[in-house]
Amino acid sequence: MSTALQVFVDGQTCDDSWPQDRALQYGDGLFETMLVRNGRIRFEALHAARLAHGCNRLAISADHAAIWQQAGQVARQHGAALLKLLLTRGDATARGYAPSGVERPRVILSVYAAPPAAELPAQIRVVTLRNCLGENPDLAGLKHCNRLEQVLARASLQGSGAFEGLMQSSSGRLISGTMSNVFLERDGLLVTPELDLCGIAGVLRTVVFREAQQMGIPVQAENIPLAALDHCTSLALSNVRLGLLSVHELNGRRLQVGASLRELAARIDTLEE
Amino acid sequence: MSTALQVFVDGQTCDDSWPQDRALQYGDGLFETMLVRNGRIRFEALHAARLAHGCNRLAISADHAAIWQQAGQVARQHGAALLKLLLTRGDATARGYAPSGVERPRVILSVYAAPPAAELPAQIRVVTLRNCLGENPDLAGLKHCNRLEQVLARASLQGSGAFEGLMQSSSGRLISGTMSNVFLERDGLLVTPELDLCGIAGVLRTVVFREAQQMGIPVQAENIPLAALDHCTSLALSNVRLGLLSVHELNGRRLQVGASLRELAARIDTLEE
Repeated sequence: MSTALQVFVDGQTCDDSWPQDRALQYGDGLFETMLVRNGRIRFEALHAARLAHGCNRLAISADHAAIWQQAGQVARQHGAALLKLLLTRGDATARGYAPSGVERPRVILSVYAAPPAAELPAQIRVVTLRNCLGENPDLAGLKHCNRLEQVLARASLQGSGAFEGLMQSSSGRLISGTMSNVFLERDGLLVTPELDLCGIAGVLRTVVFREAQQMGIPVQAENIPLAALDHCTSLALSNVRLGLLSVHELNGRRLQVGASLRELAARIDTLEE
Repeated sequence: MSTALQVFVDGQTCDDSWPQDRALQYGDGLFETMLVRNGRIRFEALHAARLAHGCNRLAISADHAAIWQQAGQVARQHGAALLKLLLTRGDATARGYAPSGVERPRVILSVYAAPPAAELPAQIRVVTLRNCLGENPDLAGLKHCNRLEQVLARASLQGSGAFEGLMQSSSGRLISGTMSNVFLERDGLLVTPELDLCGIAGVLRTVVFREAQQMGIPVQAENIPLAALDHCTSLALSNVRLGLLSVHELNGRRLQVGASLRELAARIDTLEE
């Protein structure tokens, strides 16, 4: 049910309902990017937990059992792949920003080829970006579909030769990369930015935390001013596609690849989960 | 062209390209909500200018002449209506946030019934919301499709009986309503929040500015702390659907309907533009 009298898509009348999807109109949805290995979604339970948490925070009610059953089936069929699960609030049932509460969520599952190992450059170069992330505790941590900040940040990286760009929040805190979380090694301690004001709480970030604790490596989340990067000697990026990836160069300055980061990365890579 | 091997929508294989639209995935698009009266889009030139400005800022290239030709035609056919024009960057041509630069924008034009005059309550009650707006100069002013902040704000208004909620930025500045800009009358001066950090630069906000100047009413944009609302005696909301609408009650406190706001509203309503 849409309240529009008539809808045109690229000049042609369209009777489909998707043009009224609230993710299209407002980015009103959530997504998960997942790595499939040996026919299984890696860290499926963590992805499912994050999606459920996001639905809870945004008041999107979905049939999670059905979603994960289908995703698991697609994973088995493909063996190795990258899956993107997009869960929208569904078509607008009234005009305007307010959800009516009776929308029917839409599930879009896209299958991509598994990322080739050759994709990564031999030297991981990272720069800090001038683009910032707006602070809003109501949305912080969620992998929602309002991603223009990341779109502009990735666009500004193009041509720089850098693999990733680090972003600060509007008040000058280091938050994350454009597509990754970030860990700094400092006097034997692993630290990662708090995500209470903005940023995405990555599934691999959770895994790094858990595995570090199991290995006895002290790890904590804290407020890190962007300027702390100036005297950072060891840095790694994390996401489910890359794993825990050590950075070789930050703003043209050579970094060390910390031993504990390397051990942690190897351990995470071999997890059968 | 999509790089996905396979796409499922609600469990069914889908060969259409729209599930790859970047507005659906990232809110990567812009929109205009327009009032049609007597077969014409009110303030069409201002809507067109804002859309072009947004496209410029987000590097979305579109055939604007074709867009406005179609919109004008639909307006003539319907006579009185509300139009929503959604311009997306188009389908993703590669996975990930970065635009490839070769996307083909998609134009979605939805026609809604003209808002009935009876829609407005006799008393306009407004409250301040605890929901905030993240600050990001790269996106400030644009009517882009990252609108989860407004979605959550409208949701939090439900059941309050208030017509509109006023929002502050993360650093405590008054910015706007959830669906309107805001003007305060102060010692004969009309002030509206600066939108250099967040907020949407409304078409009617531009009209109010211009018409106030023509009427000799001093008007300016400035940084307004949220706390300034405590001693505000006269307030109005603006958007193209509502016009310039005086507020009767703010957080339970009675306001005056300022004479210059009333004159300005009447003048704007009769503009043949």
